[in-house]
Amino acid sequence: MHYSKIYPKTRRDDPSDVPSPGTRLLIRAGFIAQVASGVWIMTPLGLAVRRRVEEIVRQEMRRAGAVELELPILQPRVLWEETHRWDKYVESNTAFQVKDRKDAEFLLSPTAEEVITYFARTNLQSFRDLPITLWQMGPKFRDELRPRQGLIRCREFIMKDAYSFGEGSAAMKQAYDAMEEAYQRVFRRCGFNFIEVEADSGAIGGSGSAEFMAVTEFGEDVLLYCPDCHYGGNQEKASVHYVGYSPEDPQDLVKLPTPDIRTVQELEDFTGIPASKMAKTIVMDADGKPVIVTMRGDLEISEVKLANLLGVKNVETADAETVVAVTGAPVGFAGPINLFGKTDVPYFFDRSVDGLRNFLCGANEEDVHFINVNPGRDFPQINEYHDLSKAVAGQNCPSCKIGRLVEKRGIELGHIFQLQQVYSKPMNACYANAEGTKTPYWMGCYGIGVSRIVQAIAEQKNDDRGIIWPWSLTPFHVVVIPVNAEKNGSDAEHIYESLSGYGISVLIDDRELRIGEKLTDAELLGWPIQVVVGKSWEQDKKLEIRWRDPATADSRFTIPKPGTLPTATMTVEDFAALCVELGDRQNN
Amino acid sequence: MHYSKIYPKTRRDDPSDVPSPGTRLLIRAGFIAQVASGVWIMTPLGLAVRRRVEEIVRQEMRRAGAVELELPILQPRVLWEETHRWDKYVESNTAFQVKDRKDAEFLLSPTAEEVITYFARTNLQSFRDLPITLWQMGPKFRDELRPRQGLIRCREFIMKDAYSFGEGSAAMKQAYDAMEEAYQRVFRRCGFNFIEVEADSGAIGGSGSAEFMAVTEFGEDVLLYCPDCHYGGNQEKASVHYVGYSPEDPQDLVKLPTPDIRTVQELEDFTGIPASKMAKTIVMDADGKPVIVTMRGDLEISEVKLANLLGVKNVETADAETVVAVTGAPVGFAGPINLFGKTDVPYFFDRSVDGLRNFLCGANEEDVHFINVNPGRDFPQINEYHDLSKAVAGQNCPSCKIGRLVEKRGIELGHIFQLQQVYSKPMNACYANAEGTKTPYWMGCYGIGVSRIVQAIAEQKNDDRGIIWPWSLTPFHVVVIPVNAEKNGSDAEHIYESLSGYGISVLIDDRELRIGEKLTDAELLGWPIQVVVGKSWEQDKKLEIRWRDPATADSRFTIPKPGTLPTATMTVEDFAALCVELGDRQNN
Repeated sequence: MHYSKIYPKTRRDDPSDVPSPGTRLLIRAGFIAQVASGVWIMTPLGLAVRRRVEEIVRQEMRRAGAVELELPILQPRVLWEETHRWDKYVESNTAFQVKDRKDAEFLLSPTAEEVITYFARTNLQSFRDLPITLWQMGPKFRDELRPRQGLIRCREFIMKDAYSFGEGSAAMKQAYDAMEEAYQRVFRRCGFNFIEVEADSGAIGGSGSAEFMAVTEFGEDVLLYCPDCHYGGNQEKASVHYVGYSPEDPQDLVKLPTPDIRTVQELEDFTGIPASKMAKTIVMDADGKPVIVTMRGDLEISEVKLANLLGVKNVETADAETVVAVTGAPVGFAGPINLFGKTDVPYFFDRSVDGLRNFLCGANEEDVHFINVNPGRDFPQINEYHDLSKAVAGQNCPSCKIGRLVEKRGIELGHIFQLQQVYSKPMNACYANAEGTKTPYWMGCYGIGVSRIVQAIAEQKNDDRGIIWPWSLTPFHVVVIPVNAEKNGSDAEHIYESLSGYGISVLIDDRELRIGEKLTDAELLGWPIQVVVGKSWEQDKKLEIRWRDPATADSRFTIPKPGTLPTATMTVEDFAALCVELGDRQNN
Repeated sequence: MHYSKIYPKTRRDDPSDVPSPGTRLLIRAGFIAQVASGVWIMTPLGLAVRRRVEEIVRQEMRRAGAVELELPILQPRVLWEETHRWDKYVESNTAFQVKDRKDAEFLLSPTAEEVITYFARTNLQSFRDLPITLWQMGPKFRDELRPRQGLIRCREFIMKDAYSFGEGSAAMKQAYDAMEEAYQRVFRRCGFNFIEVEADSGAIGGSGSAEFMAVTEFGEDVLLYCPDCHYGGNQEKASVHYVGYSPEDPQDLVKLPTPDIRTVQELEDFTGIPASKMAKTIVMDADGKPVIVTMRGDLEISEVKLANLLGVKNVETADAETVVAVTGAPVGFAGPINLFGKTDVPYFFDRSVDGLRNFLCGANEEDVHFINVNPGRDFPQINEYHDLSKAVAGQNCPSCKIGRLVEKRGIELGHIFQLQQVYSKPMNACYANAEGTKTPYWMGCYGIGVSRIVQAIAEQKNDDRGIIWPWSLTPFHVVVIPVNAEKNGSDAEHIYESLSGYGISVLIDDRELRIGEKLTDAELLGWPIQVVVGKSWEQDKKLEIRWRDPATADSRFTIPKPGTLPTATMTVEDFAALCVELGDRQNN
């Protein structure tokens, strides 16, 4: 390919008001171009990267035995009514709706559980047809409230979605495991530094779910990761491991005046008691109804966990009026004494207060707290605890119990889900089992954000020169750059032809520009290897090879002086052999 | 691939109320499945055929030097306003509209001239950037009034659309010619019997346009084709070649009472004068305004040609009231005498009356006609003639003037268009020429109906057994069928593996069914070659090969008895060699 024929060209100016380097670099280098908020053109270069991703996904889906088909983008309302998701998606404005000329309604596919389940129930009617995993790759739409970060949170994107159908939970688990392995292979082959995290499965009611997250400081999600056992969890969703408390003798209950002291920090300063020895009590609003939660003072409530526990859509802090109505005191003075066991409002205790003794809490009275509070004595015994707090860095890992969690940020690349019969039951999508009984399928669903991978990798692999494409995703492994178009242009064309003949994907920068500009562009564009045709070629018929990523240079390369790229000179044949070797290394 | 894992399976029942064999066969064999009116699932098999089409298109676009990118499906209103096409598409209900949560409006891309021109004007700013042809392949949407015939007239479909940008009309023509050649190659490689027809370029104002039509009696378009010079034209749009008249001496004008005689046929019967010696005068309604046309009595008016001449959107026969108002007589008695030259209503003469003398026409008076009418004497001289009639079979070819046109029906596969500056001018999309002057691009646009190709080929290539896929489009060249699953199943698996090892695309019918059912399915599914593993294998280690299309059987095949498929027996090695040979033949 000739760079002169590729548009847009690189830009010198940095697109303003864009925080993430991935967005800036992709725009500057010409891999994406915006048309409207959250709506992008995949330029020839951007599309070429995405095609590489698509090919890896396709290969791994095939390897896992999944069968490809294509579901329509226009999805009729009637199917979404069957699972009661029409209202949910329409009310929340997350899906684009379309009416046809006869006022029939459709959603622009944000996902496809309904349509694939419809396909299954009309075609997979015997246990002999199972298990099967069907998949597709194509455009999906979400009317994001705030589109941002290029291809990461956009409104039209390419997704790979797969759906498994099986007999019973063991078959579901087997399909899930196969997809989990396929996903690990996909993200590894794409060159990601990624973490597989425990994900939210509560709302759907499935028995297992995992997210694959690209680790980058420009990720939207906060993750907790255990360096010891490689456990990962989304902060909102990760389980928390609570270390038990040593037993303590109960002390005398003390009623403490705490004038104008409402926050945990103020209480710590005023009383000298650490937040971990306090129980804070919060009134939450769950789909419009109040709920009370008591948890340790140094922890934060996880709204996602509470929503899942309650099976509601939305959870937020209740307003001041509600707090007064529920606790009889203004915000900041709630506590279990005279509240737990007495109120009709649902009341939950976080697992962090299991075993906590002689703690401080609010007195449900303005400017008053209690010290040395103990359950069973000062308020009724607590019979049940729930995991309702956000996991935080420094806690022990909930998986190995030994490692200390560290905080990272990540971009979601994929999500796998054990759906059980959540879709097949309401849609009455059944197979006849060996006895002839009709039974709803056990399903799984599995998504990969194909277009966002293009950007996620750019967020992860870049330096101050530009993007650094991994060998597996770069559309061109090599760019051939004549030092002087007039003097070296025709030699460069020959070299371009011979390298192409070796099966190497080569770009030639055939523009009439100074060598410095072309090298700067090559660095910004992120091709793994630059082949400079100039003096070395004229004198010794040798190519000057520059390695884009200083961190991974092959041992044959040296850095001529600080701040320059690793360089080597070699013949066309030796260089071709090196490329083949790099490709082979990639495939293993 | 194992057929047991492919869904839907073939159906015995014929989907009712579907007239075209392509639709029936694709549904019965399991290549497509409907979700809503005009909205289809591409099943694993259907998608596999389409992928073959896509690959041919991609190869030919690359060969023609076109550069691939991907434009969004959500296209903002603001761009469509620039060309004044928003209202046009929205009023006519042909495009689906979408509003986002902030009421910003989009069209679901029915085509992409606006977006690509936007891309061009922001990126192709110098004459050095030209010429270039950009293309994409992806979903397009049209809210068809009456979706029908499966993938032919559906509401969501896959289109390949390309757009060329050049300096001046010669560059536009060169890009157009390159695409024309690419299109011929694509349709030839797909195995079509197709005609390239002269198409409508009036409304767009471009200087040339052609449609590629698959010839089939189930096509929506009526074509006229010259077997001598291979000229083709759409009936509505084809130019008509008029044979000149011999000179005649003017006869005396006669006013003829014609009580209750209004149609041409009735006039012929009553007067004995042939319709070709009559001039009929029709009042048409063009976007709400009346227009008069006089043409030879045996011809039909082409509304498309008239609309193009007038530059209006819609042309139809005027209502009776308008006819009275314009001509002073009821329908059936209009004529040029006392009308042409006297009325303010625009008046046009078809080229068929150029030279016509002593003809019959209406008298603009109820129940009266004139005979021996002559222009210049009986009404003012006609200074200008237009091509306003529909071409019909039997006329001389407008291209070679010698051949006689024959009528065929066709399905539009592709359309190429010289757009001139019709989009670049209103969008102010310019390059700076060598002198630095900003000039709007000279553009072309080029479409292929990729998904409809799947069905168009099935409409063309079938017999009473089922579909007959061409070698280039079939997802599987060979199906391996064990006669008895238990007895021959494992041998068949080995043969399947070895044939796959030769690079042949093979399906194995691994179902536990009787051989008759599997052969019937193989015929319906349309794979070019069936390999039966049974007695010949058990006795001589030879495969029984059955050739699906009796019309194209290789000379090594014979028909064992009337009504059966051509058959041969051969070793695995000989058969593999035959397949390689067939593949090579295909590629040349």
